Amino acid sequence: MKLVKGKIHDKTFIGILINKETQVLDIQRAEEELYENKSGPILMVDGIEKNDKWIEHLEQIIHWSEKERETVTFIYDLKDVILLAPIERPKKNIICVGKNYQRHAQEMGSLTPEHLVVFSKSPTAIIGPGENICLHSHITKQVDYEGELAVVIGKKGRAIKEEDAMDYVFGYTILNDITARDLQANHQQFLLSKSLDTFCPIGPYIVHKSAIMDPNRLSLKTYVNGELRQSAYVSEMMFNIPQMISIISRGMTLEVGDIIATGTPAGVGKGFNPPKYLSEGDKVEIEVEGIGVLSNSLSS
Amino acid sequence: MKLVKGKIHDKTFIGILINKETQVLDIQRAEEELYENKSGPILMVDGIEKNDKWIEHLEQIIHWSEKERETVTFIYDLKDVILLAPIERPKKNIICVGKNYQRHAQEMGSLTPEHLVVFSKSPTAIIGPGENICLHSHITKQVDYEGELAVVIGKKGRAIKEEDAMDYVFGYTILNDITARDLQANHQQFLLSKSLDTFCPIGPYIVHKSAIMDPNRLSLKTYVNGELRQSAYVSEMMFNIPQMISIISRGMTLEVGDIIATGTPAGVGKGFNPPKYLSEGDKVEIEVEGIGVLSNSLSS
Repeated sequence: MKLVKGKIHDKTFIGILINKETQVLDIQRAEEELYENKSGPILMVDGIEKNDKWIEHLEQIIHWSEKERETVTFIYDLKDVILLAPIERPKKNIICVGKNYQRHAQEMGSLTPEHLVVFSKSPTAIIGPGENICLHSHITKQVDYEGELAVVIGKKGRAIKEEDAMDYVFGYTILNDITARDLQANHQQFLLSKSLDTFCPIGPYIVHKSAIMDPNRLSLKTYVNGELRQSAYVSEMMFNIPQMISIISRGMTLEVGDIIATGTPAGVGKGFNPPKYLSEGDKVEIEVEGIGVLSNSLSS
Repeated sequence: MKLVKGKIHDKTFIGILINKETQVLDIQRAEEELYENKSGPILMVDGIEKNDKWIEHLEQIIHWSEKERETVTFIYDLKDVILLAPIERPKKNIICVGKNYQRHAQEMGSLTPEHLVVFSKSPTAIIGPGENICLHSHITKQVDYEGELAVVIGKKGRAIKEEDAMDYVFGYTILNDITARDLQANHQQFLLSKSLDTFCPIGPYIVHKSAIMDPNRLSLKTYVNGELRQSAYVSEMMFNIPQMISIISRGMTLEVGDIIATGTPAGVGKGFNPPKYLSEGDKVEIEVEGIGVLSNSLSS
């Protein structure tokens, strides 16, 4: 199941992709029409907290609405919907893993880290699919892309064991960990260089984990203006998803709706000689098999 | 004016210290009694957003309540109140500045950074004054204190000029940037080592900026079990508060209620030979002139 946050006729809503991903079902309006439930706007994070039970409930809604697809008013054509970041404002910074693909660590001139490298991006940097990434050219000349698989946490926990870690996952999305390489080098710690406004495109959907048999088998590809730059399998990660969740949660509580960006493979702009940084008008597309394509262009 | 978040008879409230800091005025209950205002619980962040106007309003409340101090029910003795972190859950990670005092950079074996070093602490790490800091001894053997002046942001902004920066400050508090030194060394980026649960004591008050003529003149002292470990003036910071706000906000929007921890002076446990890390039962007290004392003990 693919969950979206969308906007239609200036109203935002939480929806589900249906009908071979050509249409979107508005969950709140469906509940009002099918159950006469007037409990008001649905928050993605509240659904995520209910996890499997929410998914079961949404499957029922899809099932019941299928017979009446022609008459109901809570189904929109996807082409009429503006998709937003599926989680526009998590309750804390996005948790990011660095140097988690060996060849990427090498292209950055780093050794393969023995311990997980973890930093954060401010939630003020989040934008949705299709929104423009701002170049901030008055403060950086080296804006770079980093295509990443992101994990959405569905259950609060600390000291989570590797073998239990997948119980704490709600689903997956795509994240572009945009980085100002000059600021990254200057400021040592990564927060500022990774948190400029618009530097965190997320989306287009959250795919519930039940739809992804084995995340290790997913492939990730990043294109800039159609040119393939990054191509890897998630299985190439040095720390896999259960290991990451276990290490991150050793002493720090993970919460529902937390986003973990799992690191980027080789092929970032800085890895080329000369480097291939982003310019005005460039289009970055990140494709993760089974999840979708996150596409954003660069603006001044 | 000193603002607190407190708890009395299992009810939390936002209050003001009055009567030579021996009593606390419950703002919501005062408004109900004086204005018959039933608008419900007050959030610290909503008051912070109103900034000077809130402070003027609160001064009126104090003025009106002074005559009736004996009869009103919205004034408590401070000794009966449990103080909580004045901002228990900011909307994002705490923004922290590193190596901002020259002698501290030296004791950590670092060069004085040319550019501001900025990292973050997860808001899940926040505890209040008097609460215990957990040693997390299964994952670290090197828990260390860092006494810091913290700035509370009162106005949203980006690309804030140095000369305008103080308009964006609401006030000040004290923050203990507890750090697991072994994890800090292992994980390269500082997020994990600084974000273990309970590793961010904050408080005891937020002092509105109007009460602090010049923050540079404030002195900061940290005691461990009564032994003076850190002693410095805020004026020794390499990047002062307006410079920090300007650099941090160059491309990243600052929001109301954001907390900036401004760095720690020399004298942390790691700076001693042999190092003086914290143990069970140790008591850390951070005193900032004009703000107060933030005191927390270590527990297993």
